[in-house]
Amino acid sequence: MKQVPIGVSARHIHLSPEHIEVLFGKGYELKEMKPLSQPGQFAAEETVRVQGPKGEIGKIRILGPARGNTQLEISRTDSFGLGVKPPVRESGRIEGTPGIKVIGPAGEVELDRGVIVAARHIHFHTSDAERWGIQDKQLLKVRVNGERPLIFEEVLARVSDSYALDMHIDTDEANAAGVQTGDTAEIIG
Amino acid sequence: MKQVPIGVSARHIHLSPEHIEVLFGKGYELKEMKPLSQPGQFAAEETVRVQGPKGEIGKIRILGPARGNTQLEISRTDSFGLGVKPPVRESGRIEGTPGIKVIGPAGEVELDRGVIVAARHIHFHTSDAERWGIQDKQLLKVRVNGERPLIFEEVLARVSDSYALDMHIDTDEANAAGVQTGDTAEIIG
Repeated sequence: MKQVPIGVSARHIHLSPEHIEVLFGKGYELKEMKPLSQPGQFAAEETVRVQGPKGEIGKIRILGPARGNTQLEISRTDSFGLGVKPPVRESGRIEGTPGIKVIGPAGEVELDRGVIVAARHIHFHTSDAERWGIQDKQLLKVRVNGERPLIFEEVLARVSDSYALDMHIDTDEANAAGVQTGDTAEIIG
Repeated sequence: MKQVPIGVSARHIHLSPEHIEVLFGKGYELKEMKPLSQPGQFAAEETVRVQGPKGEIGKIRILGPARGNTQLEISRTDSFGLGVKPPVRESGRIEGTPGIKVIGPAGEVELDRGVIVAARHIHFHTSDAERWGIQDKQLLKVRVNGERPLIFEEVLARVSDSYALDMHIDTDEANAAGVQTGDTAEIIG
């Protein structure tokens, strides 16, 4: 049985160093609130507000550390409320995606791109991938046996020595399946 | 290929005749806005507001005609915002479900039960079911090939001479799959 822990990603944002300074002030450093499942990643104490053409959402958690490009990851449900049409994308692939206004305590940033619905994926440490014969970028079929059982197809495998085994789905996917962080999924193909 | 049209059910409410009178006034009759896929069912012009312990949602569409029991159908996502914990249930099975406050222009009703997350299901006209060898209450496996392909397991078959072929999923399920009303699902088992 190839069992994988599930991590449900609520809406969140990654910020570039420049945007952290605009939103929180010159020389500002994010404060770590708690570590995430992937080594070195953390949820910050700070949050921002985002404003789309149709609505806004407050208290969007910032995930650190800072990244090269600012990227807002929301669910499809969120996107309807905000009035933006982000594509389903792998993290980091933000070319051609819509922008949005991001509001912090010290300033605002009008992003010209960076809003995505994150494509579900599984992080494999290289040793997990070798043990199970799974290649980086392979598309997998994964059964999630929650309150409403379903099988996710085309789940992207991401393999690295710096990853910990974890399947990331968003809140729409978690709610459709009736599962939460800490539940388990099974790779079936 | 056993192909079925998808109908996405947004949050909605069915009202008993008594509750229509409390919420809209003595002798009030719902006005039909548009017919639904199931014969005789309609979306009414009227909406209500519902208030849970944590939050409220306005403009909840009433589906008519009146039913024996008032029943509010919401998504799991909605339930977190309202602060209620409805089970996933087949329509009509409201024993042991949480209540909620329903607010109309003429009055309020404090339901002691009736909030559910609707279990996904397919309506079959008897002739469709016979053609495909499907029994009432059978659990089916259904592939939905949207932006994020997945297979719903344990999809309940409901067969009647008064039904039109249609698969009902909620907004969490639609958004997880990246599909909308009018898209097509395929029964695969």
